[in-house]
Formats: sequence, structure tokens, C-alpha cells
Amino acid sequence: MSELKQAADTEHSTKGAYVTGEDFTRDTNYIEDRVVVDMAAVKAAPVEESSNIGDPRIMGLTEGAEAWPVEPGRYRLVAARACPWAHRSIIIRRLLGLEEVISLATPGPVHDARSWTFDLTEHGRDPVLGTQRLQENYFARFPDYPRGITVPALVDVPSGGVVTNNYPQLTFDFSTQWKAHHRQGAPDLIPADLIDDMLPVIKRIFTEINNGVYRAGFAGSQRAYDEAYSRLFAALDWVEERLAGQRYMMGDHITEADVRLFTTLVRFDPVYHGHFKCNRQKLAEFPNLWGYARDLFQTPGFGDTVDFDQIKAHYYVVHEDINPTQIVPQGPELESWLSEHGRDSLGGSPFGEGTAPGPIAPEEQPPGTNPLQR
Amino acid sequence: MSELKQAADTEHSTKGAYVTGEDFTRDTNYIEDRVVVDMAAVKAAPVEESSNIGDPRIMGLTEGAEAWPVEPGRYRLVAARACPWAHRSIIIRRLLGLEEVISLATPGPVHDARSWTFDLTEHGRDPVLGTQRLQENYFARFPDYPRGITVPALVDVPSGGVVTNNYPQLTFDFSTQWKAHHRQGAPDLIPADLIDDMLPVIKRIFTEINNGVYRAGFAGSQRAYDEAYSRLFAALDWVEERLAGQRYMMGDHITEADVRLFTTLVRFDPVYHGHFKCNRQKLAEFPNLWGYARDLFQTPGFGDTVDFDQIKAHYYVVHEDINPTQIVPQGPELESWLSEHGRDSLGGSPFGEGTAPGPIAPEEQPPGTNPLQR
Repeated sequence: MSELKQAADTEHSTKGAYVTGEDFTRDTNYIEDRVVVDMAAVKAAPVEESSNIGDPRIMGLTEGAEAWPVEPGRYRLVAARACPWAHRSIIIRRLLGLEEVISLATPGPVHDARSWTFDLTEHGRDPVLGTQRLQENYFARFPDYPRGITVPALVDVPSGGVVTNNYPQLTFDFSTQWKAHHRQGAPDLIPADLIDDMLPVIKRIFTEINNGVYRAGFAGSQRAYDEAYSRLFAALDWVEERLAGQRYMMGDHITEADVRLFTTLVRFDPVYHGHFKCNRQKLAEFPNLWGYARDLFQTPGFGDTVDFDQIKAHYYVVHEDINPTQIVPQGPELESWLSEHGRDSLGGSPFGEGTAPGPIAPEEQPPGTNPLQR
Repeated sequence: MSELKQAADTEHSTKGAYVTGEDFTRDTNYIEDRVVVDMAAVKAAPVEESSNIGDPRIMGLTEGAEAWPVEPGRYRLVAARACPWAHRSIIIRRLLGLEEVISLATPGPVHDARSWTFDLTEHGRDPVLGTQRLQENYFARFPDYPRGITVPALVDVPSGGVVTNNYPQLTFDFSTQWKAHHRQGAPDLIPADLIDDMLPVIKRIFTEINNGVYRAGFAGSQRAYDEAYSRLFAALDWVEERLAGQRYMMGDHITEADVRLFTTLVRFDPVYHGHFKCNRQKLAEFPNLWGYARDLFQTPGFGDTVDFDQIKAHYYVVHEDINPTQIVPQGPELESWLSEHGRDSLGGSPFGEGTAPGPIAPEEQPPGTNPLQR
């Protein structure tokens, strides 16, 4: 297990959160199977070490993992809109135009102690999988599955079993393994000439920002919180500076790095600022980051996947240990997400040589509050 | 008991907070004695109804209350810097220059279940009163005192007993009854020609803003919170508009209304925005209110009485029911309190015909974080 793996998980999990001593640690034991183009080559490749950020260049599997074939219509992505780790996969699926080949199931924001549940659908069952709880799909694969029931999970529809919940690799595989099924004009989210520069950026986004907000919010002592706060804002200052002179994290076009940063940024003022005490300033008080976040929000594939009601309900209701009243704040005001961001002056274009995805399918529109949908 | 009295208290109290049904109600049972210039006239006047906002025009006492003589050096004001209701009296004492005639004791921010305590002073005892807990001074007056031990409390030094903890009237009496002892150049905080206009403003500030933040933070249900949030921000919108064309709440000069508003505003971003879920926007996101709050902060007598560390410690540590971890947020950044406020362009002058108080006495400087003290 790599050092990065030590910084373990929770949010997408019903079990994953734990505090060792005073410091929050993220539990990372995933089903690390992969859906791949060339199963034989993957099986023949050397065993890889798993990584908390994934790697689009790797060919092999981690120990004990299996390879599954790319097959349109076979898999269903189970991804709660509330969860930032799952939200990544919703955005990337849409940016790449994989909606026709990988269907989407969205559990509600408020899971119970056992599992994320399909409580938003009629009769509380997923219409394709037929299950009420995602846990059933984990058990269909491993009857004694001992770990947290996490989203995103890619489920094999014929067997109903979970293929993988290894989110760091999942979105990379959407880009590299499903290429033949991308929509026309799909962006290249991991350009070959940027990978080596991008992976350290993604790693820093993960450890310091994506996970950094949790480290602050779930700190078990004032000391642990204070350290987490300093780490988080040091990283946000780094990004703020980086975005002063360039439109996106890796330059002129959106990449996987932007998606991974966006899912934390869009939750920052509604949740992390207050609930996780990440309150040196609001996102809206970082000039570049706020311009950047709005630029992405207003780009098809990003903001149109956001459900602010589900995001807020999830954190404030599920984390009873830090919000015992379970009251969900009404703020912040959200209209400002649509305000002029001014980032065009930096040049660049979100989709590079590609094009924006079309309008989101009506059945995939987030049902809750989103200022784009007025 | 007036209708206003229904909107009862807590913050300055160790017992005062309670929730009836889902709605937060403020307990208001005070020791309503008064220190007055003309004891005979006061005793002869008709019995007054008590009021949650006080009234500078009234002569009489409330039922059961007694009159005490104005006497320099006799009384000690016990006022925790953390508490907004006590903070009023600290500011007004200083604006009027009563430091030489009414001494000040400042209990620490984190009271226990029984009482505010003098834990910041050497040996944990107030050097003048000799007590460890303010409760002892309540008991010195009423051995079976059954209600919350609240600040501010004005204590009779010779007997060690509490004279009054009736904060709404206390600061008015500082203006009207202690006039002979005001410093030269002391402002008139309740100008005779403005009283009739000011009392309804003060009432609205009290019910909708001073108490409004508590109604949101201590709501016992989502419904109660939602209603409290709407009421609070409706009132802040009213003030925001009012302050667009005039420098202070009642016009060109500071009055008691500004002091009463300021103590809530200065706590808004550090505490109420996150801890009490008053998060439609930060104070710093209201252009006029934020300019106004900084204008006051930078005016001698206001900002120089603020201790942000004590304010944050109080709320986040004492309210274990809404912050069970008792972790105190590091934010927000406070330097911006010193930034250019631009309110001078509206004309006016804080002290009217009077002058600003001189520098705060070294022994009365707030010991904690305050950007004015760098």
C-alpha cells in the first residue's frame, strides 16, 4: 500500500470514515477490477501497486483484481450526486459522452448506516438493477463484503455485482479504455504531453484539497484541525496563484485535473466553509479560484451536473457527529455562480479541438437546486 | 411581561437558553434594580413595565426593584468580552468615559454550567471582588438566586452583591444617570430629538438581529431554522438599505443603536455565519453593512474593545450541543477589518460635537486577537 493510500477515505462510504488518534484517515480498500479494451494484455502485464490518484498509463491490475471487457450497455455507474468522489465520474462520463454506453443510477444523498440507497426512484428501487440498497450489489459480487459501501461503483448489470469502486482509476479508464465510444468532439482530458506534469498536480489536489477539507472537518482535536486548516489553505493559495496566469489547471484546456478540483470547489462555500470549518475565507473571496470555479460551472458538463440540495443534505444530515441537529443551512445564495467570470481574457478554450457536450438529457438533470435550471 | 419579553435570552447566561417546542426563546428574568441620580424621585414614580430594549425616558422602577445611588468607585461592571450583551456595556462605558468611576471585571469566555468565572485573572479570582465565580456575587445579593448567572452584571463592591443584570436598561442609565461623570467630549448616545425614532429601531435590532442570530442557531427544527433565517436576513436587508444613504443608524452621529447593532455584526462572520448557520452571505458580502461595521470598528471605543479569540472560544466551546467537537475555527481572516471603509463620503462624524475617547488603558486592552493591536 502506497503512502498515499494512508490518507484514507469516507465521504462516499458508509463505513469509510475513521479517526486514528486525532487525525482523520481515509480508508482505501477498493474493489480494484478494471474494465479494459485488451483483457489479455492487461492480465499479462505486471501487477501494479494501487494508487489513490490512479494512473492513466498503467496497463496491469493490482493484486487480486480482475479485468472486464468494454461492452456498451453492460455496466451501470452508481454515483450519488452528493458525493464529490462520485461526482467526478458523473462529470467525466458526460464530458466524454458515455451516457449511451454506461447508464447512470443516482442514490439519494442521505444514506443509512448500511448503505447508499435508491430512495429517489419510484418504489425506492433502482429501475435497472432492481436493488434498494447499493449494498445488495456489493453482496452480489462478494457475499461477505466487509468494507464500506462506497460510490461511485460500476456495476455489471447482468450479474448485479460491483465490478469496481476504485474511483481514482475509474475516470482515467473512462478516458483511455472507452475511447472508441466517446462522443464526437469529446475532449482529451489526459493529453499525453501533459500526463507527467498532471499526475503530481492531481496528487496534490487529492491529498491537500479533495481530502484536505475532510482532514479539517473530521479532525479529532484542535491541534489536528489547526494543522489541517493550514495545509488546506496553503494548497488553495498555491492554486490561486497558479490560476492567475492560466485559465485551467494544466493550461488552455480542461483536463482531468480540473474535474477533480471542481468537485471540491463547488462544495466549498455551501458545505466545507461552515460544516468543516474551512473558513479562512470563502471560495468567493479568492479572486482567481472563484473566477475559475464559475468558468467551469458555466461550462457544459460541469455546473449542469450539480445538485446543491443533495450536496447540502448529505453532509449536514449524515454527519450527525458534527451537526447533531441535522439542520441544513439555507445559504449560501447561489445565483452568483452565474455571474460574469472574466476568465476568457486569459485565452484558452475549455474543449480544445473538441466541442462542448450537448444539453443534459432530461432524465439526468439534477432534481434539486441549480441556478442554471431556472 | 411585555410581548418583547417573550423573546428571551441565553448567551450571557449559564442557564438562560432554552427551547420551547422547536422555537428558541430567550429567558428574561432580571434583577431590575437601577443606579440613579435621584433616588427619591425614582421611588415615587409609577411602577414601570420591564422591557427587553430598555427606555432612557423612564423614571420609575419595575415591580420589586430597588434604587441605588450614583457613586463613583462603588460599582464594578462584570462583563465578559465574549458576550454580545455584555459587550454593549463595555463599549458604552468607554465611549462615555466612565472607566474612572465604574471599574471593569472581565470573566473568561468559557463559563461552566454554574457560572461565568474569573479564570483569566491571577489565581482565578477577581482582584476587587475576591470571588472566583460571578455566581458568588449573585448569591451575596440573593442567597437562593434561582436563575441564570448572566453578564453584564453591575456589582456593589462593598457588599459584593449584584445590583442589576438588566442589560437593556443598564447602558441607557450609563448615559442618563451617570452624566455628571462622563468624560469631557463624551457623545450623546441618546439625543433627545431622536429617542422616539430610535426606540423602534433598537427594538427591531433586538428582536430581529441581536436575538435573530440565536433564533437561527438554536432552532430545534428545520422549520424553525428556516423561519429564523428568513427573518434575520430580511432585517439585515433593511439595515443594508438604511445605511446606503446615511453613515450611522440614526443619521450623522453614533448613538446607542449603533452600539447595539455593532456587537452582533462584529461576531457575524467569526461565529454566526458558520456556527449559527446564518449563511446567506457573510457580513463582508453586504457592501453597506460591511463598510459601516468597519467604520465603527476603526472608531475608538468600538474595535479596541473586541477580543476575537474570546468571542470564538465562547460560542464554539460552550455550545457543545451544536459543536460537539468544541473545535474552534481558525478563520476568518481579520485583517480586512482595518481596510478602507469609504463611509466618510456619506458625511457625518462619529462623535458629533464631542470627541473620541483616548487610547484604551493598557490594563483594559483585550488580551486576544485584534488586528488593531499589531
